[in-house]
Amino acid sequence: MADTREPLGVALVGCGTVGGAVATILTRDQSILAARLTPRIALRCIVDIDFAHARECGLDEALFCEDLGEALADPAVGVVVELVGGTTVARDIIADALRAGKHVVTANKALLAHHGAALYALAREHGVSVSFEASCAGGVPIIRALCDGLIANRIDAIYGIVNGTCNFILTEMTQHERSYADALAAAQAAGLAEADPTLDVSGTDSAHKLAVMAALAFGQRVDLEEIPVDGIDALQPCDVGYGQELGYVIKLLAIAHRQGGGISLRVRPAFIPKDHPLAWISGPFNAISVYGHATGHTMYYGRGAGGMPTASAVVADLASVASGTAGRRFAQLALWPDLNASASQLPVDDVESRYYIRVAAEDKPGVFARIATVLGGHDISIASALQHEPTDADPAAGVPVVITTHRAREGNVRSAIAEINALPVIKAETVCIDMVDEHPEQM
Amino acid sequence: MADTREPLGVALVGCGTVGGAVATILTRDQSILAARLTPRIALRCIVDIDFAHARECGLDEALFCEDLGEALADPAVGVVVELVGGTTVARDIIADALRAGKHVVTANKALLAHHGAALYALAREHGVSVSFEASCAGGVPIIRALCDGLIANRIDAIYGIVNGTCNFILTEMTQHERSYADALAAAQAAGLAEADPTLDVSGTDSAHKLAVMAALAFGQRVDLEEIPVDGIDALQPCDVGYGQELGYVIKLLAIAHRQGGGISLRVRPAFIPKDHPLAWISGPFNAISVYGHATGHTMYYGRGAGGMPTASAVVADLASVASGTAGRRFAQLALWPDLNASASQLPVDDVESRYYIRVAAEDKPGVFARIATVLGGHDISIASALQHEPTDADPAAGVPVVITTHRAREGNVRSAIAEINALPVIKAETVCIDMVDEHPEQM
Repeated sequence: MADTREPLGVALVGCGTVGGAVATILTRDQSILAARLTPRIALRCIVDIDFAHARECGLDEALFCEDLGEALADPAVGVVVELVGGTTVARDIIADALRAGKHVVTANKALLAHHGAALYALAREHGVSVSFEASCAGGVPIIRALCDGLIANRIDAIYGIVNGTCNFILTEMTQHERSYADALAAAQAAGLAEADPTLDVSGTDSAHKLAVMAALAFGQRVDLEEIPVDGIDALQPCDVGYGQELGYVIKLLAIAHRQGGGISLRVRPAFIPKDHPLAWISGPFNAISVYGHATGHTMYYGRGAGGMPTASAVVADLASVASGTAGRRFAQLALWPDLNASASQLPVDDVESRYYIRVAAEDKPGVFARIATVLGGHDISIASALQHEPTDADPAAGVPVVITTHRAREGNVRSAIAEINALPVIKAETVCIDMVDEHPEQM
Repeated sequence: MADTREPLGVALVGCGTVGGAVATILTRDQSILAARLTPRIALRCIVDIDFAHARECGLDEALFCEDLGEALADPAVGVVVELVGGTTVARDIIADALRAGKHVVTANKALLAHHGAALYALAREHGVSVSFEASCAGGVPIIRALCDGLIANRIDAIYGIVNGTCNFILTEMTQHERSYADALAAAQAAGLAEADPTLDVSGTDSAHKLAVMAALAFGQRVDLEEIPVDGIDALQPCDVGYGQELGYVIKLLAIAHRQGGGISLRVRPAFIPKDHPLAWISGPFNAISVYGHATGHTMYYGRGAGGMPTASAVVADLASVASGTAGRRFAQLALWPDLNASASQLPVDDVESRYYIRVAAEDKPGVFARIATVLGGHDISIASALQHEPTDADPAAGVPVVITTHRAREGNVRSAIAEINALPVIKAETVCIDMVDEHPEQM
């Protein structure tokens, strides 16, 4: 099936790990692509300010270009791949490309989470598309699932493990009883965490991805600033262990679900029942559980980072641009945040969930009754309770009492915990962890 | 974003469980669809010979039609959904629809496995498309993953749990130590197995799905008749148990992988290491692991059957027809079997894998040495061996000796087993089960 049309010319902007892999697929692996797709895709230029990695990848130096303007002026360039990252220079690159009438493919979740709607609107104004399969979960085609494969569904909930660094750390803590610090060091030694891991372990990166996915899933505009985000850096090994005793595994979850008339979006460490598929996701892998009204539970699993997996997603988007499906999808889906009103994002106090509460209390009669009384006073019903031996030789540390609640309003739980912490018998800050096991399809 | 174009008219042929659910999504749930997709989709008619189920679904009787010809003559009908099933009437319906210039959406894996290439060629001749997301794994968008999300990859292997009935039965056998007969009865009681379960438990249904997926994954024409198929009906509980002792879980797998210059396709019960995500898939769920050269391992999980999950896939295809992406994808992918040469399908004897072998031998000195000698004589290297207590009070049943092999050629294993079965110390037919744990990305 020879295709006589001109190939789709690609300007690749940013040649780091992912950019190098994209260029490799478009050049070294071009026969693989040609065997699968009729329209041809031709790498026209690699725009960067430093070509060290491009040279390491053995890419043709004739492609190197330091001037984005030159690339945008090339009529053979039909699409610009932005892999610079960040929300400043990258934003200008994408805006310039769209204004020049080029389609855009990007992996930049931070940019889309902050400015997606404006960029989509700009693309529409110029009759081109923005594609971003690579922005969430690397090589896992989750954006396509939300926009295409699951299009017949009202999406009711998303639970995502979308940061491989955090999942690696939590897997180490769970399976090898490591402390957070030791597990982080192991992730850094394995090349899975940055020297400054803040963006990952704080939950910020997961929140970016959640904002991108939720906007598409619910067809509403999401405000990133309104997503409550907790990271994994304060997690204590004893809570990981008590959770396991109770039949739960701790995961950093990006959560989006319909509740009442609104949508709850949050990122936080949470307990998942050990028989839920998400509980099995280990090491640096990502997985996203999506609950649709027709499909019920579907889950998507794979490598959420790394050069080749992420490049797989970028090149899938290039293939869609080349075949024209990217443009049609972008024009004809009603899901894009720039076409929709803002979501009614629930304040965190209005979230309803089950909770794990660990109290460090003095080991004396009547303490449990006092705690239970506080919880009851805030309309929180206890599902289970167990008291452990002290974890510490120091009696001043108190005895750990672990309580799980039935479904409760998070605002009530916070108020109750503040009250509990003020009790004189309490020896340390009370720990509270979300327990995600209420979705009807989950069990 | 009002769309002023005419809606895409749908003729739904076959209103059983899936057809009823498709009609429900297109009517009762039309606001869900309208919120996600700009082009409108309108159910024009329901063609069947019996409308009992359609009435149960509360569908508008004005849509009922007994004459396919009438539906095909309606210029407002742009797409025909074939949900009749089987390979005779359904084939005529699809051929007539294509000849009438209508796009076709079908869930019919048996038909596509047998006659896909001819139907695709006919569609191309008439400038229309055939879409079949619903043919494999129900609500899981695996066809889109293979044709779109993973398009940048050379697909190296697929391991699929694609029959929910079998997976339910095997889960019962594994988790509750039931016999095959008891587990089948439980599946029937749960409405998950037909009164005559042959199509499912024989592996035939899985082979149909494997043929459809493999053709797309490898971009080659697959011969269904050349796929060796073993079902689950001969599985013995003791082997399920010994596998678990060794750290493996039994699954009915649809396997496709590149080996040497060819492709091995096979359907059979096989052992998966218990830390592989496929080992965790329980009950009626489906999951497909796909290994791409860029993505590495990705997996897709969900409900493989049932009205609404399957209808979700059918309606996704209708949405793609409405937006024009189905036509473009069908025209521009080089993967379709009618555009490609036949795959070089390896004879089963040339498959290389690891194997679990259980021998029932007389409990006397030298027996293990004789078995080991036979295996060695066929170039089969033993990875582990364990001898169990007799499972049976009857000493004539022999002592079970379980051997796992290193990677070996299946032809050699078959010859060795024939030789072992002929030894006078052997008390029962030797059992041999594939162990799928050699893929580099799996571990």
